[in-house]
Parts: sequence; structure tokens; C-alpha cells
Amino acid sequence: MMKPWFGAPGFTSALVLRIFQCLCAAASIAVMASSSGFSTATSFCYLIAAMGLEVLWSLGLACLDIHALWVKKDLHSQILLSLVVVGDWVTAILALAASSSSAGVMILFVRDSELCNSEPILSCSMYQISIALAFGAWFWLAISSHTVLWLLASLS
Amino acid sequence: MMKPWFGAPGFTSALVLRIFQCLCAAASIAVMASSSGFSTATSFCYLIAAMGLEVLWSLGLACLDIHALWVKKDLHSQILLSLVVVGDWVTAILALAASSSSAGVMILFVRDSELCNSEPILSCSMYQISIALAFGAWFWLAISSHTVLWLLASLS
Repeated sequence: MMKPWFGAPGFTSALVLRIFQCLCAAASIAVMASSSGFSTATSFCYLIAAMGLEVLWSLGLACLDIHALWVKKDLHSQILLSLVVVGDWVTAILALAASSSSAGVMILFVRDSELCNSEPILSCSMYQISIALAFGAWFWLAISSHTVLWLLASLS
Repeated sequence: MMKPWFGAPGFTSALVLRIFQCLCAAASIAVMASSSGFSTATSFCYLIAAMGLEVLWSLGLACLDIHALWVKKDLHSQILLSLVVVGDWVTAILALAASSSSAGVMILFVRDSELCNSEPILSCSMYQISIALAFGAWFWLAISSHTVLWLLASLS
């Protein structure tokens, strides 16, 4: 059995990180999907897709962590960790790209074109909350992916 | 002396990666700054700033690599590698955020609002070339940052 390692699969800290990721991503989807006129920008639709992927990925790994904690199983095989690292990185890069592109569009709406004031159909404050939650979801996923990569490099 | 390691500081592969990063980032700045009307979107100005940071960072590390290759010095101290990892990650995250936000704005211009057709002052093809080069600069930087993080984790 490995020594307890912050954020490694099969420990409570990893499970907490996964739950944070799920909650932030799900809240981001809920806020964005319930705001009116989000389909005017492709970036906002892409944000929903990327956050949906993150919810699925984090929920799956949270279930894996719960199972490992339940039966006290060691999850630190090279192959499993490699799969988790690749999935984490792909999801994290997509999440950061989606958050940043939505933030770029948001800044264009608010600062550069003042479309938020002139078009009452755009619920800009909702978009901003959703984008902030998406950045939060990315942040927790980035912590997970770094710790798993570090663990994999230390094991090999 | 360590065994040769792809992309580790002080080896030819690392120097080649740094030169690619510099060239892509510098070309991205040049194309964006020479296109007309780029200051209409804050994201495009932020892209220039982030690529400027990447040029400075990669140029500095390329000089360090050249120096290490010249005097055959081993650069693999923990402190130096930690500094390089932190700088690489910060620069890579900023570069990806800048590229994505510009791409989000670009998609809004081309697909969602068709502003590119209606406003002849926007040189949209130039913006697209610049954003593609910025993604290239981010890609090479991501390879560097992953290899250095891996090396640091293996040494510790």
C-alpha cells in the first residue's frame, strides 16, 4: 500500500476534488442553460459541451474513488494512472479553452461593444456567473491532473 | 551527468522546442499587430500581451540552453527545474487562455454575427493566421512544460 498522497486516485482528498469538479461544472451548465439567448454565441454552447464532458468524467472517477475507499483497494497501477492522466489532461485543456473563449466573448459583449446594455435579451450577469463557475471547475480539475501526473512520474 | 532526456533543459531537443515557441509566438504578434482594427476586441490585445510574455520567456530559456550546451553544464538542479516548471505552466496557461478567447471572438465574428463580411475594416484572415500561430506556440510550450514537470517528479 502506498503512503497517503494528496489527490491520488483512491484517497478521500481525490474524492473531494472530484466532487468539487462535478458541482462547479454542473452549476455552470445549469446557469448557462437557463439563461436566455445563450445560443447567440457558439462559445457558450461549447462551454456547455465541455462542462458536460467534465461532469461525466469527474462523476465516473468519483464513483471509482468511492469504490476503492469502500473495498480498500489500491488503485495505483501504471495503466490505470496513465488512463486517468490522459483523460484529466484532455478534459482540463477543453475546459480551460471553453472558459477562456466564453470569457473573450463576454468581454467583447460588455466592454468592447456594449451589446449587454443595448440587447435586453442577453442575460449577461447569468453568463458571467456561469463562466466563473467554469473557471472554478477547470481549477479543481487542474489540481487533480497535476497531482496524478506527478504520482505517475514518481512511480515510473 | 544525467542521461539525455527529450526536452529537458540543457539538451538540444529543449533548445529546438524553445526556438519553435519563440518563432510561433513572434510570428503571431507580427501578424496580429500588422492587421488593421485588431484593437476592436480586448482578446486580440491580450493575445499580443500573452505571446509577448512567451517570446521573452522562451528566448531567455533558449539562451540558458545555449549556454549549458556551450560549457557542457548540467542544469538539472531541483531549484532551477522548479523555477522553469512554474514559469512554463504560468506562460502555457496564459497562452492557451489568450488563444482560446481570441478564437471565441473570431468564431463570433465569422459564424455568429457575420461581422467579417459587413465590416471591411476587420482583416479576419489575418486574425485567423495569428490565432493559429498562437495555438502552435502554446502546443510547443505545453510539450516543454510536461517534460520538465515529468523530469522534476522523477528526480524528487
